[in-house]
Amino acid sequence: MTASEVPSRFLIAVGGNAIHPGDIRGTPEEQVELAARTGERLLPILIRDENQVVITHDNGPVVGKILMRQTLARDRVAPMSLDICVAHSQGGIAYLLMQALENALRRAGSPRHVVCLLTQVEVDPEDPAFREPSKPIGYFYDETEAAEVRSTLGWTMREDSGRGWRLVVPSPDPRHIADISLVQAVLESGAVAIAGGGGGIPVVRRPDGTRRGLAAVIDKDLSSALMARVLGLDALFILTAVPQVAVHFGTTNERPLGQVTVEELRAWQREGHFAAGSMGPKVEAAARFVEQTGKLAVIAHLDEAEAAVSGHAGTRVHPAPC
Amino acid sequence: MTASEVPSRFLIAVGGNAIHPGDIRGTPEEQVELAARTGERLLPILIRDENQVVITHDNGPVVGKILMRQTLARDRVAPMSLDICVAHSQGGIAYLLMQALENALRRAGSPRHVVCLLTQVEVDPEDPAFREPSKPIGYFYDETEAAEVRSTLGWTMREDSGRGWRLVVPSPDPRHIADISLVQAVLESGAVAIAGGGGGIPVVRRPDGTRRGLAAVIDKDLSSALMARVLGLDALFILTAVPQVAVHFGTTNERPLGQVTVEELRAWQREGHFAAGSMGPKVEAAARFVEQTGKLAVIAHLDEAEAAVSGHAGTRVHPAPC
Repeated sequence: MTASEVPSRFLIAVGGNAIHPGDIRGTPEEQVELAARTGERLLPILIRDENQVVITHDNGPVVGKILMRQTLARDRVAPMSLDICVAHSQGGIAYLLMQALENALRRAGSPRHVVCLLTQVEVDPEDPAFREPSKPIGYFYDETEAAEVRSTLGWTMREDSGRGWRLVVPSPDPRHIADISLVQAVLESGAVAIAGGGGGIPVVRRPDGTRRGLAAVIDKDLSSALMARVLGLDALFILTAVPQVAVHFGTTNERPLGQVTVEELRAWQREGHFAAGSMGPKVEAAARFVEQTGKLAVIAHLDEAEAAVSGHAGTRVHPAPC
Repeated sequence: MTASEVPSRFLIAVGGNAIHPGDIRGTPEEQVELAARTGERLLPILIRDENQVVITHDNGPVVGKILMRQTLARDRVAPMSLDICVAHSQGGIAYLLMQALENALRRAGSPRHVVCLLTQVEVDPEDPAFREPSKPIGYFYDETEAAEVRSTLGWTMREDSGRGWRLVVPSPDPRHIADISLVQAVLESGAVAIAGGGGGIPVVRRPDGTRRGLAAVIDKDLSSALMARVLGLDALFILTAVPQVAVHFGTTNERPLGQVTVEELRAWQREGHFAAGSMGPKVEAAARFVEQTGKLAVIAHLDEAEAAVSGHAGTRVHPAPC
């Protein structure tokens, strides 16, 4: 595929805002409505049967709600380990997304299936992230609550710039997507595959090939880049709540990036333009995918999904000048 | 296949006791250990690549724990609708089961994949079950709590023979397994498929083909029988915590059933030998499968899984005398 061609085998990573923005309560009705909106935005892409599409999704703030519920219920109901919490969030979010995407397809007269595969993602137990948990997840707790969950649940809590205390967990690099051949089998069957939710259920593989879960979260964009590469897909689309990546963000010099080479993007990244908790992982994921595959990565707004795929929207990261 | 042949394409329905017995707290460590035991019991079956196997599983008491957590957290975290709770339980349980089954296979030197598909199951919105919710699920609440969840969450609560109050929900008949062709695709890829957890996520299909979730639970054995029939499988194995179905249960005349015809089983059923909350749905599921397919259904102990498949254990329900 050259840069001017429209890809037909690709991965779409859907951000947390498309699933559950942080500023809503997140009732079932709200979640169904948000999923329906995502379905409408992706419909023009999914209705084209020639498009082989894998969809991944974030799981914040859903996993935060799961953690808060089990915090408040801890005296009466055994808390779950974080890998199991992630698995619960994959089930809940992917169900709503699968239903919404199929509903959009049915309304448009398409019988195409959307299927969700639970996904384990292997990490390296020696990953430096395990030495110093740094990824804040879930709700903010006040100081008393923070002390309580630290002592009763063993959580590592960190104060976050005056806003309260949050659980911090390791966020190791994804190394291997478990059972990825099944994602391939689903694509070949003609269905759309939802996989890798919340970055995947974090596991390590022991020397004998067996796996066990661990208390970590994996960045969903980094997992998505890995999955797209291993599946040999044409392109990676990271859909979020802004139309393009910007440099000098929040200053009078702010400038959105349209077409960029991966070298240019890496240069901006080295200059510190992309915040760790926000655009940083998306930029890193896009850069990795392009460097490792020589293919295209795009960061775009969910509302411009179709234009992003057809070449007319987003920050488009190329291996070399077009 | 005749009655004397060993089936090679079949469904195994794993009961709640194999996942999470009601008498344990259900810590992650306990859940991992239980799943490992299930993995060991099913290994001799799964390691034979010629066996195409679908595995379904119960979701009690896991869904009860999800409901209790959200009850206790309801002032701070928006409660989920029951369909989403079931989806969460599919994610959490199937993850542990998938990992445990693959671990057992790896220890035995097999590279076989086990994959989990989230499953929606359609019910009839006019099912009489919706007129009078009757299936108790989750924890027992005391009278004060019961009144509170009734008023704040709108739950239908019923007093259960002096043991406390429980949420009762509709348990409609499964009518259609959504996207079942994908289960078939997974089987054909050579992998073991986990699907239909907790009886499936309950949904209704609107006239335009779109679906929406609803507050119900579907019996996992009835869903399993439907799934096995639609997939054209050779046999249905319902694995539970007793070695055989018994008539005159709990009396001095108690007699376990070995080989029975479906007519004999129906006759015992009409005489009221099988309790609604216990062996009733398993017997009904086995009878339906045999009547509708002319094939074999077996109800057996999880510990005798291999013997059940090879013809030497359980209550074996045949279409006609052997």
